[in-house]
Amino acid sequence: DPITFGVLTISDTCYNDRSKDRSGPRLVSQIMQTFRNAQVITSVVPDEKHLIQSELRQWIDRKDVGVIFTTGGTGLAPRDVTPEATKPLLDKECPQLMMAIALASLKKTAFAALSRGICGIAGDTLIMNFPGSEKAVAECFGTVKDLLPHALHLINDDLALVQRTHA
Amino acid sequence: DPITFGVLTISDTCYNDRSKDRSGPRLVSQIMQTFRNAQVITSVVPDEKHLIQSELRQWIDRKDVGVIFTTGGTGLAPRDVTPEATKPLLDKECPQLMMAIALASLKKTAFAALSRGICGIAGDTLIMNFPGSEKAVAECFGTVKDLLPHALHLINDDLALVQRTHA
Amino acid sequence: DPITFGVLTISDTCYNDRSKDRSGPRLVSQIMQTFRNAQVITSVVPDEKHLIQSELRQWIDRKDVGVIFTTGGTGLAPRDVTPEATKPLLDKECPQLMMAIALASLKKTAFAALSRGICGIAGDTLIMNFPGSEKAVAECFGTVKDLLPHALHLINDDLALVQRTHA
Ligand code: NA
Repeated sequence: DPITFGVLTISDTCYNDRSKDRSGPRLVSQIMQTFRNAQVITSVVPDEKHLIQSELRQWIDRKDVGVIFTTGGTGLAPRDVTPEATKPLLDKECPQLMMAIALASLKKTAFAALSRGICGIAGDTLIMNFPGSEKAVAECFGTVKDLLPHALHLINDDLALVQRTHA
Repeated sequence: DPITFGVLTISDTCYNDRSKDRSGPRLVSQIMQTFRNAQVITSVVPDEKHLIQSELRQWIDRKDVGVIFTTGGTGLAPRDVTPEATKPLLDKECPQLMMAIALASLKKTAFAALSRGICGIAGDTLIMNFPGSEKAVAECFGTVKDLLPHALHLINDDLALVQRTHA
Repeated sequence: DPITFGVLTISDTCYNDRSKDRSGPRLVSQIMQTFRNAQVITSVVPDEKHLIQSELRQWIDRKDVGVIFTTGGTGLAPRDVTPEATKPLLDKECPQLMMAIALASLKKTAFAALSRGICGIAGDTLIMNFPGSEKAVAECFGTVKDLLPHALHLINDDLALVQRTHA
């Protein structure tokens, strides 16, 4: 059975000009290249807490959505509210997963300390906040991709995410 | 003076068949082998938030209980609610202690990122959520054991936990 | 334009005898030696949640205060309430920044796991809880100093913190 990934780009800039969104498409491409039975839905919202939450809620409520990656809005700027929008929707927080992502990022650059993304579970959907830069997003996905099949199976017995085998 | 450790096994499986609990007894054995003046109380509860909290509250309220280790219920499964049961009981969170445990665990396996255990202080009792597997529990205990005498002394001047000296 | 740093020493001992405060003055000295356009305000309060919060609120409300470092009150002792006083004032938490500080501290001593300091943003002021010891404070400042100009610029476009160039 296919498992749906939600990729939510959170950025005023990308909302006004979707051609500027490179992180969302990069994530879509990585997901499709990594998993045999993944399908992906995408959306772009501005950095507005209630609009972020409204989109997340719709996806959380969908039975087929097993994972949501957000990209953008995790920094220190006044408009960066992705973690604040995400946290109230979570039934369970996953601080160690956030930590594992941050550890890998900190090995690349000390400025990863300024990201504020969180991870957790809402209903039976795993949500991870990734930073907005294409490079950071690619690294974060690389950190978690091998964990996802086991994670989804734990959240929901019926979810069997299949990694492609690369020669 | 003796210091009481509480070891709470949180698992539907172990609750229904106590012979299946290997992590609880392993922790008891490690505590007794490590500390000269420790005594241990144990209990097994199913993965039910209110039952976990009821047992934790009884131990927190006991003057002699200085440390509580929980084992189990820290994962991503729907029934895993140990951190959610623990957090509302804490007066103070200890995120760096959780982090130190997670760091040590991540050196063993990347799947430690999927544990969600927290640490904190309730009254004058230090509480740590450990995973459910016997191997993980033994490693987590190994990470914190040398910190415990100092930690207990900080929480309560009168607590002097004595480590055994091994030749 | 100058940027004001607030250095808040939180300690019953130092409040009763200011000559005992070595961590506050050490931070002031490090700030002045590191940044060309920094100015520093200082205060010493006892380990009382409402007094800590009252001082923090006054500084957060000042337009010129871009950064607040607290030192002290982050441990496990009953009187240690700095994180509990800080957290309710934050608009945004910065767990990865806390993590980066803790990682650096853990490389020096395993006992850094017993610190409980948090980091976050209140209004447009970045707040970081550092431990109370002079040595730990100096190390924590060393960990974050190169991140501060970028962090302040993200929080507030108009803030340009200038690092001194050392030959
Ligand atoms: Na301010």
